[in-house]
Amino acid sequence: MNRGRGRSALRRPRTPSTRKVGLPPGTVLYTGSAHETSHTVDLIVYGPDGCLHRRGIPIEEALLGHDDGRVRWIDVVGLHDAAGLERIGEALGLHALTLEDVASVGQRPKMERYDDYLYLVMRMITSHPTTAATQPLARGATPPRLPALDDEQLSLVLSGSVVVTFQERPGDVLGALRDRLAAGKGRARSLGADYLAYAIVDLVVDHYFHVLEQLSDALEVLESTAFAGARPRLIDDVHVLKRDLLHLRRTIWPTRELLSGLLRDDDDRVTPAVRTYLRDAHDHAVQVLETVELLRETTNSVHEIYLAGLTVRMNEVMKLLTIIATIFIPLTFVVGVYGMNFERMPELTWRWGYGAVWLVMLTSAVSMLFWFRRRGWL
Amino acid sequence: MNRGRGRSALRRPRTPSTRKVGLPPGTVLYTGSAHETSHTVDLIVYGPDGCLHRRGIPIEEALLGHDDGRVRWIDVVGLHDAAGLERIGEALGLHALTLEDVASVGQRPKMERYDDYLYLVMRMITSHPTTAATQPLARGATPPRLPALDDEQLSLVLSGSVVVTFQERPGDVLGALRDRLAAGKGRARSLGADYLAYAIVDLVVDHYFHVLEQLSDALEVLESTAFAGARPRLIDDVHVLKRDLLHLRRTIWPTRELLSGLLRDDDDRVTPAVRTYLRDAHDHAVQVLETVELLRETTNSVHEIYLAGLTVRMNEVMKLLTIIATIFIPLTFVVGVYGMNFERMPELTWRWGYGAVWLVMLTSAVSMLFWFRRRGWL
Amino acid sequence: MNRGRGRSALRRPRTPSTRKVGLPPGTVLYTGSAHETSHTVDLIVYGPDGCLHRRGIPIEEALLGHDDGRVRWIDVVGLHDAAGLERIGEALGLHALTLEDVASVGQRPKMERYDDYLYLVMRMITSHPTTAATQPLARGATPPRLPALDDEQLSLVLSGSVVVTFQERPGDVLGALRDRLAAGKGRARSLGADYLAYAIVDLVVDHYFHVLEQLSDALEVLESTAFAGARPRLIDDVHVLKRDLLHLRRTIWPTRELLSGLLRDDDDRVTPAVRTYLRDAHDHAVQVLETVELLRETTNSVHEIYLAGLTVRMNEVMKLLTIIATIFIPLTFVVGVYGMNFERMPELTWRWGYGAVWLVMLTSAVSMLFWFRRRGWL
Amino acid sequence: MNRGRGRSALRRPRTPSTRKVGLPPGTVLYTGSAHETSHTVDLIVYGPDGCLHRRGIPIEEALLGHDDGRVRWIDVVGLHDAAGLERIGEALGLHALTLEDVASVGQRPKMERYDDYLYLVMRMITSHPTTAATQPLARGATPPRLPALDDEQLSLVLSGSVVVTFQERPGDVLGALRDRLAAGKGRARSLGADYLAYAIVDLVVDHYFHVLEQLSDALEVLESTAFAGARPRLIDDVHVLKRDLLHLRRTIWPTRELLSGLLRDDDDRVTPAVRTYLRDAHDHAVQVLETVELLRETTNSVHEIYLAGLTVRMNEVMKLLTIIATIFIPLTFVVGVYGMNFERMPELTWRWGYGAVWLVMLTSAVSMLFWFRRRGWL
Amino acid sequence: MNRGRGRSALRRPRTPSTRKVGLPPGTVLYTGSAHETSHTVDLIVYGPDGCLHRRGIPIEEALLGHDDGRVRWIDVVGLHDAAGLERIGEALGLHALTLEDVASVGQRPKMERYDDYLYLVMRMITSHPTTAATQPLARGATPPRLPALDDEQLSLVLSGSVVVTFQERPGDVLGALRDRLAAGKGRARSLGADYLAYAIVDLVVDHYFHVLEQLSDALEVLESTAFAGARPRLIDDVHVLKRDLLHLRRTIWPTRELLSGLLRDDDDRVTPAVRTYLRDAHDHAVQVLETVELLRETTNSVHEIYLAGLTVRMNEVMKLLTIIATIFIPLTFVVGVYGMNFERMPELTWRWGYGAVWLVMLTSAVSMLFWFRRRGWL
Repeated sequence: MNRGRGRSALRRPRTPSTRKVGLPPGTVLYTGSAHETSHTVDLIVYGPDGCLHRRGIPIEEALLGHDDGRVRWIDVVGLHDAAGLERIGEALGLHALTLEDVASVGQRPKMERYDDYLYLVMRMITSHPTTAATQPLARGATPPRLPALDDEQLSLVLSGSVVVTFQERPGDVLGALRDRLAAGKGRARSLGADYLAYAIVDLVVDHYFHVLEQLSDALEVLESTAFAGARPRLIDDVHVLKRDLLHLRRTIWPTRELLSGLLRDDDDRVTPAVRTYLRDAHDHAVQVLETVELLRETTNSVHEIYLAGLTVRMNEVMKLLTIIATIFIPLTFVVGVYGMNFERMPELTWRWGYGAVWLVMLTSAVSMLFWFRRRGWL
Repeated sequence: MNRGRGRSALRRPRTPSTRKVGLPPGTVLYTGSAHETSHTVDLIVYGPDGCLHRRGIPIEEALLGHDDGRVRWIDVVGLHDAAGLERIGEALGLHALTLEDVASVGQRPKMERYDDYLYLVMRMITSHPTTAATQPLARGATPPRLPALDDEQLSLVLSGSVVVTFQERPGDVLGALRDRLAAGKGRARSLGADYLAYAIVDLVVDHYFHVLEQLSDALEVLESTAFAGARPRLIDDVHVLKRDLLHLRRTIWPTRELLSGLLRDDDDRVTPAVRTYLRDAHDHAVQVLETVELLRETTNSVHEIYLAGLTVRMNEVMKLLTIIATIFIPLTFVVGVYGMNFERMPELTWRWGYGAVWLVMLTSAVSMLFWFRRRGWL
Repeated sequence: MNRGRGRSALRRPRTPSTRKVGLPPGTVLYTGSAHETSHTVDLIVYGPDGCLHRRGIPIEEALLGHDDGRVRWIDVVGLHDAAGLERIGEALGLHALTLEDVASVGQRPKMERYDDYLYLVMRMITSHPTTAATQPLARGATPPRLPALDDEQLSLVLSGSVVVTFQERPGDVLGALRDRLAAGKGRARSLGADYLAYAIVDLVVDHYFHVLEQLSDALEVLESTAFAGARPRLIDDVHVLKRDLLHLRRTIWPTRELLSGLLRDDDDRVTPAVRTYLRDAHDHAVQVLETVELLRETTNSVHEIYLAGLTVRMNEVMKLLTIIATIFIPLTFVVGVYGMNFERMPELTWRWGYGAVWLVMLTSAVSMLFWFRRRGWL
Repeated sequence: MNRGRGRSALRRPRTPSTRKVGLPPGTVLYTGSAHETSHTVDLIVYGPDGCLHRRGIPIEEALLGHDDGRVRWIDVVGLHDAAGLERIGEALGLHALTLEDVASVGQRPKMERYDDYLYLVMRMITSHPTTAATQPLARGATPPRLPALDDEQLSLVLSGSVVVTFQERPGDVLGALRDRLAAGKGRARSLGADYLAYAIVDLVVDHYFHVLEQLSDALEVLESTAFAGARPRLIDDVHVLKRDLLHLRRTIWPTRELLSGLLRDDDDRVTPAVRTYLRDAHDHAVQVLETVELLRETTNSVHEIYLAGLTVRMNEVMKLLTIIATIFIPLTFVVGVYGMNFERMPELTWRWGYGAVWLVMLTSAVSMLFWFRRRGWL
Repeated sequence: MNRGRGRSALRRPRTPSTRKVGLPPGTVLYTGSAHETSHTVDLIVYGPDGCLHRRGIPIEEALLGHDDGRVRWIDVVGLHDAAGLERIGEALGLHALTLEDVASVGQRPKMERYDDYLYLVMRMITSHPTTAATQPLARGATPPRLPALDDEQLSLVLSGSVVVTFQERPGDVLGALRDRLAAGKGRARSLGADYLAYAIVDLVVDHYFHVLEQLSDALEVLESTAFAGARPRLIDDVHVLKRDLLHLRRTIWPTRELLSGLLRDDDDRVTPAVRTYLRDAHDHAVQVLETVELLRETTNSVHEIYLAGLTVRMNEVMKLLTIIATIFIPLTFVVGVYGMNFERMPELTWRWGYGAVWLVMLTSAVSMLFWFRRRGWL
């Protein structure tokens, strides 16, 4: 069960900490565990003509000249500094409840429409691949290890030509997008802030495929293990995998709703060109969801196969016991009879008594064996 | 099963007492068990400029000057005095069916719109934390105890600038709100009676998180117990936990509907500013519901793991029995053979007869052991 | 399984008798079993000023002066007289299909709108309380008996100021209403025929609470029995209870639809004042339905607990067998060895041979016991 | 498993034969097995004044004078003659796809609206009652036999005042209707072709009740068998019954949709008078569906009861084994001890040695029995 | 588990390869495994008057004169050449995302509407029939083999009078359509490009029937095997079959949605004449889906029957063991008693001692046998 700390984060349901109960609504209080890092603000400004990447600047500076027609992506990393967050919120004109949700990192994915901006909550799920043992039952080998999942909240605010993202910890799944913006490849720099928001959502969803692929690999190993024979802890791994899939489903389901909400949207924040891309991302989310369901059903099957295998093996054990006992217990009785010390036991003095007893016993044993064979027990 | 009296309240489904069958509709009859306390009326009057808290006053006095622009929160505690309730209802202009629902404390959460007022029924669920044993299988230790839940009906009437709450017993989850009103912190005093109603609902919902966290802790202990080995009464605890979660679900599901009903509402009782907060509370209810579902699925998993563990252990027991019996029953037969008292048993007089028998028996036992090992039974 | 005849009525699904197949639609044919009683017509006429109760009058007389502004409740008991029913139908102006449904007593609850009248089918379910044994496992005590359910169809026609009810047998759950009308208490006499119809529906629904309470009591006894240990017939009782609950659900579910249909109704047969009461009855039906679901889930839990208990006990039985066999079978082999009659067995002549064998055997037994203890089997 | 050929027809899912894959849409090809009969056309012409029944006439003759205001019911039996069907289709003006569906007898019930006519597909399900054994466990008695189901497609075309029905084989459930038309009883002859179509649908649905009643009887026998004890093949019968019910559900569910489709219909093919009757038939279909669901749940219960019974009996078997082994294996060890041949075994020469051993053994056995009794094993 | 490579394609969920994560949207990258073939373009041009089939031509040539009123079907086989695909896309005016979906061969079936064309994704599923063993339990026979499924993506673009299909590998299920076009039979050549698109979809759906029939045959063999007795690997085959059915369901469900989307469609791409055919194809998809569900339920039943059979057999094994042990263990004790060597055992010297012991033992054994018989164990 040594799954690392990423696991324990999943085991607990995502409930706001009890410390928050009783505080007035709109209170900005970080409920996560990443307290070590102070928050930093990165800025990427780009247009069709170029792209500028500045790191670790104050939020006010990041917003300077935000109406020059270029798209700015402000990336805030680290959420435990409530005062800092409130300052950022004020600069961006965010509602108190939005800030509370940004800091309460146990949110489920959702989209909220405010007068001035669109607020999205996503969850970045990453997995740490482990060296999966491919030989299912090699004696003494370490059992195949499940990938450890890591779950981090990613909030996104789309306000005019500005996209702000909030993360708990440094490191994310958006590196490829930053590279694309820097290189100016694809459509990335020619479309507006709505395309940037889409691209971020798309990367998060695409990463779910990656996670699912690793879970699928682990499940395949479990499956062939279950087919091959019993491993005592198999059921525990199946249980953990089931929980991971449940967690993924709980994450991806509202993500899909978020995307279909964006698609149904009638205001002008999302341009038709980007809408086509959103439909694509929505399809991906549906596909991820279906894969999760498939894996869940397969997990249940593995559970059932394992249990059926246990019963089959129990049957074999009992058959062996019954065969041995059925053959030898009567024989032991027979030899016990002639071990009695009665003074008058005529058989004991017969010339062929001993041989006759052997004959009787062999006949009995052999006919038993035949009977077992005919019943298909041997 | 020593869970205290809070448990037994949950075990029985919330059905109006049979004493009520046959009474005309609109009959005010308290169906709960808190008969000891006479009812008391508390009043909190506040506006942006100040807050006044008066305890134990007559209902008529509480209503004096209710149209002075200030918000009044009238808190009625104790419902078994039908005449008193009817007097209160008359003073507030409540429908007979509303009063009946106030006193019939087995209601499910709901919202009802009357011409003059809005009537909400909520359920305050609190849990008594117990010292959960963190070591799952310490020999002789008392098993981890589940938190005992307590369920109390909270009725709320929102009529103009007056909010009236009805509770069965003193003690509730609203202390934090009273403190906030007294201190004047946050938005509490600047918004109207609809915000007050929201704040009460929000605290009730937030408390569900607290309860869920304790159930989640208990479940985690049960889970590791199920992983670690068999505890005979585990299945009972799982069952009780499942019922608690079922009860929570039955409570929270209509609470969510209540909130979405308030959100969809088109009349002017709820102002747009408060509507944003209600959306937040609705999100919380959805989140609670999801957590309940997650815990329910985990509970089912624990049940399955426990049963699978039983089968695995049964397999081991049977294997041991079969190994012992398979090795020794034939040997016992062999020694029985040479315990027979036939006069003519040539082997008995051979010089190395005794040693040969030992050799045969050892060979048989060792080859059995090898066979078992090759089949993976050892 | 001695549940009385009320049980057998439930066991069979409510299908119209095969005798009816092939008859033209609209044929009035009683399909129930209450053939002994001839039908009787009772009449209650009331207004705000008074109430008159006449028994056993002809139908034509009951309808005399039906437009005098007073409400008349005509109660027809006994349905096996097709000619009589048709005469009643003619007097009331009922459609042939309505009369067929009145006589086919296997109908599910429904509401049908005709041009001149509203037709409701309800089911009155009553239970015969039995002395439930409260001590779950007292040796030799009779097992707790489940309440026997009785199911009777109640048809209701609301036509202008006339309400007609049709029942199969004398005896119903409406006595309280008759008393209220006679006493003139509550709102009963001041509102119109629609209120009377509501009051009848409300009493039928309220009685479901009563039935559920008795089933809930029986389930509680079963539950503690399952917790306490195995009673061989427990599973049968659980099964019967499950079927009763299924039957209740099948009855109450369409009753709820009937009520929400009445609520959604836009014609003027139901006045707004009565509509508020109907909403209350609808809430009750929802609550009953939820309780049924809760009891069903609990029933499933009891089933699971019982099965898990069986497995736990099986484990214990097998452990005992294995412990005894593992300790004594090797010892029996040892003593068998020294019961052999070989001429040359040096140990037999050793001075301390006998004592040494005892020492070996005791050591083996004690170490086995330790090993079992360490594995937690003892 | 000797269920006759009606069974095998059900076992295979209703898929169009593979011979059809690749043929162009609209190809008329009979996919059933009733190839022996050539097709015949029967005609019933009726009006309020009289009814004429002609058998075995050419299709053209059957259509002569179809606009004389009288209703004609043309019944085509035998579908394997593609050319004949196409001729009929041409005479009636049917679409190629309609003819294809008529001949492809694996259709699910459906209604299709064409410009000139309404096309309905129904399934006539009949059961062959078998003499159900009422004594569940009489030794050596033949097990109760399940009724064999027979499933035949009935297509219906309603075009103006003409109703055409297509069947595979002679023999149907519509005899009662023909008699009614001939006798002129009921409303049969006074209403139009839409009533005729309704009457046919109604008879088909009513026959489902008949089938369900027989399945219900068989299930009741299985149920009491499961309660009474284990019959090895019970589980197979339960499985076959489950499949029959599944098949019925698959048939009746779309039939209900067909009926509600007819009810929702806004064109003038169905007159309001007939619509009232259709509502009745729809109610029947709903009731049949509910009964099927009830029987399905009961079937599952029987399965569970059977399995639980197996486990209970296994427990009893193991208890007996354990009791016998626990009492006698230690005793056998004791007597084995004093069967050893050591030269120096002081007990053997004691005066009361033999009696003392008996005393020890009896004490041990009796205390074991007490212990088992206290644990409730005896 | 030797199911060929078609199996492994199904085992993995259809996720876009991880190589794609991070690439910009709209990147054309083939994610399948058919890399060996270079792509080829085939063209079929037809009108009512004739049909021309050209193979292996450049895409530009295939499009020449595409507005001459004739229908052209361009079939592109082989998708791994990204540059080639992009050239084709440019010639046809396809959106970048369409091209991406064409090459990402893990798509679920869907329909997408673009301004200039309609884009459909289908999945062609074929099965390799294997010689199914019809004798379920012939000793030593090879177990019945399940058919291996093969799954290939078929993209279809309908743009004006041009239909373009994209496949991964040569070989498809559309041969019959090509023959029909060449022969000019049926309606094939007289209707437009929308009918061609319909005909392609229809053939793909019809082929699902074929696949289902083979799975159904395999399931029937498994079913009778489960009825007949235990085959150890049965559960594995059931599991594989369940997964195949799950895969089919996941494929056919969105195909049905695709078809109902086309039916609901209001633009003029699909003519009313073709719409009637589409309704037929939709019916087929519904029927396939129902058959899949039926097979899934049957699969679950087989699983349950197999498990129940295991338990029944375990019961029999345990009964035999218990009977043997219960009869002989006490007897062995008795003979052990008289094998003791006490000096004073009076019975040993009795004249009829030996015979009396035999009598006691026989009586005991016979009465045991009677008792077992009365309990139904023999």
